[in-house]
Amino acid sequence: MTQLELARKGIASPQVKHVAETEGVEIDFVLQGLVNGTIAVPANANHTNLLPCGVGKGLRTKVNANIGTSPDFCDKDIELRKLQAAIDAGSDTVMDLSTGGDISGIRRAIITSSPLPVGTVPIYQVGIEAIERHGAIVDMTVDDIFDVIEEQAQDGVDFMTVHCGVTQASVARLKNQGRKTDIVSRGGAFLTGWMLHNEGENPLYQYYDRLLDLARKYDFTLSLGDSLRPGCLADATDRAQVEELIIIGELVERAREAEVQTMVEGPGHLPLDQVATNVQLEKSLCHEAPFYVLGPLVTDIGAGYDHITGAIGGAIAAAAGADFLCYVTPTEHLSLPDAQDVKEGVIASRIAAHAGDIVKGVKGAREWDEEMSRARKALDWETQARLSLDPELSRQIHGRIPSAGATCSMCGEYCAMAIVDKYLTRPAVKH
Amino acid sequence: MTQLELARKGIASPQVKHVAETEGVEIDFVLQGLVNGTIAVPANANHTNLLPCGVGKGLRTKVNANIGTSPDFCDKDIELRKLQAAIDAGSDTVMDLSTGGDISGIRRAIITSSPLPVGTVPIYQVGIEAIERHGAIVDMTVDDIFDVIEEQAQDGVDFMTVHCGVTQASVARLKNQGRKTDIVSRGGAFLTGWMLHNEGENPLYQYYDRLLDLARKYDFTLSLGDSLRPGCLADATDRAQVEELIIIGELVERAREAEVQTMVEGPGHLPLDQVATNVQLEKSLCHEAPFYVLGPLVTDIGAGYDHITGAIGGAIAAAAGADFLCYVTPTEHLSLPDAQDVKEGVIASRIAAHAGDIVKGVKGAREWDEEMSRARKALDWETQARLSLDPELSRQIHGRIPSAGATCSMCGEYCAMAIVDKYLTRPAVKH
Repeated sequence: MTQLELARKGIASPQVKHVAETEGVEIDFVLQGLVNGTIAVPANANHTNLLPCGVGKGLRTKVNANIGTSPDFCDKDIELRKLQAAIDAGSDTVMDLSTGGDISGIRRAIITSSPLPVGTVPIYQVGIEAIERHGAIVDMTVDDIFDVIEEQAQDGVDFMTVHCGVTQASVARLKNQGRKTDIVSRGGAFLTGWMLHNEGENPLYQYYDRLLDLARKYDFTLSLGDSLRPGCLADATDRAQVEELIIIGELVERAREAEVQTMVEGPGHLPLDQVATNVQLEKSLCHEAPFYVLGPLVTDIGAGYDHITGAIGGAIAAAAGADFLCYVTPTEHLSLPDAQDVKEGVIASRIAAHAGDIVKGVKGAREWDEEMSRARKALDWETQARLSLDPELSRQIHGRIPSAGATCSMCGEYCAMAIVDKYLTRPAVKH
Repeated sequence: MTQLELARKGIASPQVKHVAETEGVEIDFVLQGLVNGTIAVPANANHTNLLPCGVGKGLRTKVNANIGTSPDFCDKDIELRKLQAAIDAGSDTVMDLSTGGDISGIRRAIITSSPLPVGTVPIYQVGIEAIERHGAIVDMTVDDIFDVIEEQAQDGVDFMTVHCGVTQASVARLKNQGRKTDIVSRGGAFLTGWMLHNEGENPLYQYYDRLLDLARKYDFTLSLGDSLRPGCLADATDRAQVEELIIIGELVERAREAEVQTMVEGPGHLPLDQVATNVQLEKSLCHEAPFYVLGPLVTDIGAGYDHITGAIGGAIAAAAGADFLCYVTPTEHLSLPDAQDVKEGVIASRIAAHAGDIVKGVKGAREWDEEMSRARKALDWETQARLSLDPELSRQIHGRIPSAGATCSMCGEYCAMAIVDKYLTRPAVKH
């Protein structure tokens, strides 16, 4: 039985119990979220070393780190180091987006090594194998697509990005709309290229029931990808994007009927004042399915620093109700991240997620800040370091000079905390 | 005549003309903003090498970099390198917050070397000299305070943070309120300590007219400091903070009557959903005086990465109408920044300011993003690098592998842009 089937029968799986325990919420809360479709617990039965996490309403906002090879960088050991960097930095999930080297072998190595839920975008492998077999991505067959999805499901992939919502109808909207950057989703581009070349409907839409059968069989979660997400601020929240989201909303309902869990992917590039709007749109059109946003990036000019651009959008999205933030690294738009970039990306997204959790009222979020503030007021540097996102870095910065002791090297003896403690907290000297 | 006097007479100073030209707005727009008090042009007549900038409504959101020594780090050359790092990274202003070494000498060196407006917090020097002369900060005299302010004004300081709003009344509110972190403003702590020890009113409040006389004489801009800003999320938007802001609002009006320009400083630590509220409060209580926020930091736990925490709050604040962002560096709460930290802080704040400017509709903001997006769509890597915040870094990341050419090393031959260009932008192959 799938997690959703079990939940509908009121049965708490070990995965659900683990989620409830780590979140500090009742088991029934998680079960009800699964039943309502507002919580997903991506947990493929074949991912045997998985420590599952829940994504959705009432739970801590989760962070995903994308790793994986490209044709230019395809070393399995480097990917495993990036996986470890993501785990060490506190990522909640990883996605293997490999498009170079031994794609299947690398995926299996990542799943075997990852206690975190692992996601993939199977259409990448389909497209690349189509080039090898048939000479072009547009020559992939329907069976090629579903064979790869089944292969990845058998390997234990917990959630898969599937671009089911890009259809002839939504591409027509795109053409009518006119765009600055057309399509920037790689998977979306593979499928759109196929649709235009073959003058056919998107197989992942046309044969959606076949996809649902596989998802139910292996109990992987569908992450309904947004092929038509805006690739720049000027294209944000346009008719093509919203048309696709409407279609995705219908597909969410069909998945729920089939006892398959879903998440919905979102932008992308958005002006700051459209971020909350996009969260509300998704929650409304997709019946509160967990929303998984890519950034969002609140400006297009952040290359080299897009982990910051993405953290701004991610924090606003999380505060507005987004459930799952896909990290962005400093190398976005420029190159593949290395292990250090992975770390920077995860930490930036964790800050964003936590800033959102404070607003959402997620259990434990404000308490973390209050504990830090007490340690700060007490000039307790070791506790401050321990409570920071990167204790080693905190200790290193605070210890830059040998005299760093009770107060910090920023103010030294002119520490506001110390002065106020003397004159405000304690009785005034003259009294 | 001060900039404000000139503006009221309808006379455009060279400084105002420079601001209008660099912003791409009409001279009359800047003059009217000065008259209304919604724009400040900090420009001390003694800062002879100044290239002035305007801060306020309808102008680009500005970024400030704090530099300066502490007792533990007091090397003038290092401060000049930090100044250069701030200039190179695109900061709009710098503040010299030196509290160690030859404070006056370092300030003069910074002003001489800085084409950017320079700000200071004179109470630091007052307090430190009081320790040297009298043995304790609380023994500083009223004349000590105004003598230092005049010394700094003579040196050419363009804007000064003056903590005039922390009064016996606002400190009483603080005591009634009860706080997790009491006072975290160093200047505020100096003055509050003095007030409590001497059982007297804040001299900067009591003798505010004397301050206004000096400000008018040297034409420096008052940056009305928020001594009672929250030092943690739990203390945000409390009665003490708002009481001080009310007092500051009254002082803004008195400054306008005295033909002195003002800006108002704001938090600090704020939950994400209180950032826009704080901007609205300031705009309302202080009659739209330019709002200069410190971050704001949307979580307390970001030590080591507070440039990101601050960029999140800063972007939301700017979008909501904040005019001036004080950067936060990765070393905030831990140590003094070095030149690299200064660079990281400035760039993070520039991203925030720009994300806000897009929402505000500041002239040229969206155009920058659109130009970047056109270059991205065209796979024009050199233009993308040139348009990024750090062209050298962009080139370096993109060039990580020798084969990086037309497409980027992230997707290589599977570039969405290239695929879509083939099948969507151009006619489909079969047609």
